[in-house]
Amino acid sequence: MAGTYTSHFGINNIPYGIGRSSRRSAPQAVTRIGDEVIFLAELSKQAPLADVSADLSSIFAEKTLNAFAAQPKDVHVETRAAIQEAYKNSLHKGCSEDIKDVELLLPVQVGDFTDFSVSRDHVTNAPKALFGKPQLPHTFHNFPLGYAGRCSSIYVSPTPVTRPIGQFLENGKAVFGASRALDYELEVGAIVGRPLAGDTDVHAKDMDEHIFGLVLVNDWSSRDIQGCEMRDPLGPFKGKNFGTSMSPWVVTLEALRAFESPAPTHEEPVVHFLDDPNSTSYNLTIEAEIVRKGSTTTVCKVAFAQTMYWTFRQMLAHNAIGGCPLNTGDLLASGTVSGPSESELACLMELTMNGKEPKKLSDGSELKYLEDGDTVRFTAVAGDSSAGVGFGECVGTVKPARLL
Amino acid sequence: MAGTYTSHFGINNIPYGIGRSSRRSAPQAVTRIGDEVIFLAELSKQAPLADVSADLSSIFAEKTLNAFAAQPKDVHVETRAAIQEAYKNSLHKGCSEDIKDVELLLPVQVGDFTDFSVSRDHVTNAPKALFGKPQLPHTFHNFPLGYAGRCSSIYVSPTPVTRPIGQFLENGKAVFGASRALDYELEVGAIVGRPLAGDTDVHAKDMDEHIFGLVLVNDWSSRDIQGCEMRDPLGPFKGKNFGTSMSPWVVTLEALRAFESPAPTHEEPVVHFLDDPNSTSYNLTIEAEIVRKGSTTTVCKVAFAQTMYWTFRQMLAHNAIGGCPLNTGDLLASGTVSGPSESELACLMELTMNGKEPKKLSDGSELKYLEDGDTVRFTAVAGDSSAGVGFGECVGTVKPARLL
Repeated sequence: MAGTYTSHFGINNIPYGIGRSSRRSAPQAVTRIGDEVIFLAELSKQAPLADVSADLSSIFAEKTLNAFAAQPKDVHVETRAAIQEAYKNSLHKGCSEDIKDVELLLPVQVGDFTDFSVSRDHVTNAPKALFGKPQLPHTFHNFPLGYAGRCSSIYVSPTPVTRPIGQFLENGKAVFGASRALDYELEVGAIVGRPLAGDTDVHAKDMDEHIFGLVLVNDWSSRDIQGCEMRDPLGPFKGKNFGTSMSPWVVTLEALRAFESPAPTHEEPVVHFLDDPNSTSYNLTIEAEIVRKGSTTTVCKVAFAQTMYWTFRQMLAHNAIGGCPLNTGDLLASGTVSGPSESELACLMELTMNGKEPKKLSDGSELKYLEDGDTVRFTAVAGDSSAGVGFGECVGTVKPARLL
Repeated sequence: MAGTYTSHFGINNIPYGIGRSSRRSAPQAVTRIGDEVIFLAELSKQAPLADVSADLSSIFAEKTLNAFAAQPKDVHVETRAAIQEAYKNSLHKGCSEDIKDVELLLPVQVGDFTDFSVSRDHVTNAPKALFGKPQLPHTFHNFPLGYAGRCSSIYVSPTPVTRPIGQFLENGKAVFGASRALDYELEVGAIVGRPLAGDTDVHAKDMDEHIFGLVLVNDWSSRDIQGCEMRDPLGPFKGKNFGTSMSPWVVTLEALRAFESPAPTHEEPVVHFLDDPNSTSYNLTIEAEIVRKGSTTTVCKVAFAQTMYWTFRQMLAHNAIGGCPLNTGDLLASGTVSGPSESELACLMELTMNGKEPKKLSDGSELKYLEDGDTVRFTAVAGDSSAGVGFGECVGTVKPARLL
């Protein structure tokens, strides 16, 4: 059932979010076990959380997770164990509410957002869909290719997305109107925990120390607006900056440790600071669904670890090398998580070949790009679905364009 | 004399910054008249500032100008007049220090940074310098071309810049090392004042309401790292994200009103939301100097208004259209302010044709790209230099690369 995902939130997960309810005066940090949302500023006042070596009761009272994310890994490990212990002893009872009574807010304040593009299938499929010819980027084997995204339009799931207006090509000329090629991109994002100063030594193998956890990301994309501007060499801008959705729960690296999985072997040698002897990805199964007129169609089901040529550690290292500080709360997203088969294509540009090869949805309608009213839902679970570690959902419904 | 610029700060300017001194416990908002820096949280406690219709004493006590920038224009107009009045009546005497005793900090917290590229000369010169052939971008006449930049590496002048390390091409192969083609880009930036929500009507002609003021910007660029990554279509990333310098003083639109100047006529019709019947730029003369081994060479002197095909109003409108919120403190930079003649080329890629046509500096040395120890200094004045409205300087010295 939409919005429940009880099985994603077992005792082994302990994800973090920011929650608000009518029974509490201000938003605060929360976690979720089953369908219970536990308010952590309150739980922190009693043992065993009160014994953690950080002032959790003030850290968890903040309106974002940034102060908590910035803590050393030891504190994250201690806190997770203390929450599990408190739950087992039913100490959370006075500090919890049912998930249906809690509104989840954007979990972190994002100071910088980098969107990478590290699926080999996505980067070769995209030029094929757009120009009829697959082509691997020149630098694909050298470093994770990325660009800076927009922070002001990052919204928490299930905030709707409004179809953007802008300029795109019609018969070779730029015209203005509502985008006719609205797409989703199924991505996973890493949230920076401990910051990394600009003058620090940077090695991919050390970068887990700076990752707080992972989220699901929908990098909504307007393919016609993007196509118009990307004829020039400055990259995507208006085609992306109208909205990016983030799941409300940050699943920590501690919870994902049990689901580590080797990253694909590199096909070419890489520069020493990107070289990672134990190159690690995560065993996540990710799905995308489109809901149109009440009928749900699964449009993608893909294994995360197999599709990502570069790991988050490598993305962080490449982002930072040269002197670029990473701050707590920064978002580094994977880019579209597409795999090799048709059922693993993680955006409509690939799945419908830029609208030229429409698919059928379960309501019988034709799928080229997104229509007003369509809902796009992403989910992800770690390991098999019985492990109790999942991301819940990242969902958004398309609202009609607001024309000038 | 370096760092003085007394004549830029007459009674008609009243720029805003954030200052710290050993005699005061915390940074606060400051302005400058002549060589006197006036601490505004303190001055606000007495008339006439205390009569302004905003709680200036708390707004000016913040560590950034964001809370002040977010005020309505009426408050900016009132505050400016009140400061001028206070100064004329010598009420500032207990709240001021000499400029040499004050450290200036980054004036705003930047949540998003867009770098545009709106000088016709720069955009045609760049492909000529890189590939031997001038070429106007496809979309140049349709909208101001821009991309998202990095916020975490925006530093206040005179913070030094460290030569970045990264991957660039050597004999067609990507190698790793210290950039050999470090460049500056002479730019002007607009700071967003009143925020603009994503669901607002957007018209260029209304956008001055959302501009707090202008700053000088040095968009330091590594041409070899940038050249390697920009063979792929996602735009500049590592070639730019190691550092961006911003001048410490925000010169308000109120101070610049007297220096409004018509923007260049558009060569093609533009979409209605970018159409601006009174398209306005500013009469600013901007200079770049390189100081090498104590010897100063002016490398660029250019008239801002004539070079900018698109205005800041149009850049804000294009940035926002489609639903992208603009937040207070956001930086929108012009891109390299190059004019048509050699003395008006505002980066070294253009001036030295990507190092292939070296110039001579006044110390007799050869100028291709920046060397370690070089200082780059930008200045700008409004109108003729007697008007008392200028930007001071945006300066930075190149520190050697920190090799891994």
